[in-house]
Amino acid sequence: MLMCTAVQMKRRAGSAEPVEDGTCKVDFVDEVAVASVRRKLPSADVIQAVADRFDVLSDPTRIRILFALGLRELCVCDLAKLVERSTAAVSHALAAMRKAGLVAYRMDGKLAYYRLEDAEMRRLVTNAFAREKDAA
Amino acid sequence: MLMCTAVQMKRRAGSAEPVEDGTCKVDFVDEVAVASVRRKLPSADVIQAVADRFDVLSDPTRIRILFALGLRELCVCDLAKLVERSTAAVSHALAAMRKAGLVAYRMDGKLAYYRLEDAEMRRLVTNAFAREKDAA
Repeated sequence: MLMCTAVQMKRRAGSAEPVEDGTCKVDFVDEVAVASVRRKLPSADVIQAVADRFDVLSDPTRIRILFALGLRELCVCDLAKLVERSTAAVSHALAAMRKAGLVAYRMDGKLAYYRLEDAEMRRLVTNAFAREKDAA
Repeated sequence: MLMCTAVQMKRRAGSAEPVEDGTCKVDFVDEVAVASVRRKLPSADVIQAVADRFDVLSDPTRIRILFALGLRELCVCDLAKLVERSTAAVSHALAAMRKAGLVAYRMDGKLAYYRLEDAEMRRLVTNAFAREKDAA
């Protein structure tokens, strides 16, 4: 096991205790626990869909849009002006975020006003930035 | 504006009403609203850090690990067995997830047991899968 080798090397180099680096120092599998969890794991399709949802959020412009929508409802033109992108680019980003269930919109005359999809999204956005503030 | 052109084309093609596709049909910016939100936007560094955190989650193996840790605490060896990856690969994934504040660990003798970082992460994971179930 690679990690055991690393620990052994550190010991040889004179360190009395293994460094706590978040790895197991021996190879021990709890087969009962693994089998129990495996039975509950969602299908590969579901896992992929969840990963795809987070992938939609791994872009700074989309995060800016989400943060803004966490403050107030805004139309596509407002968002484009705010993030300094074309309305076409912002519409494309919003369509991906809608498909992922992150944002929703309502038409008000000729304007499409966007909001966060639900309270869970609002908590997610608030929390993501709260953590960042804590770390700063 | 690209979208207006598309709507006009649809109208010319015989559709009486513009299609509600989530785009603004006119270009109208609420400058006061945009200025107000812009003042509150976090710095580019903070935005990028949040996007990076979500990027860590945009991988199926990491989502599998998160789902498993949502069920119970597991050591690195258990997780490697569960997701059918090497312990080195799983350790690498866990280190990235720790750095992003998603998971935490405790040493129990020579084994490193991982859990979700906090209740917010638990809600995020539960909710991500709940939505997927709704959509199925």
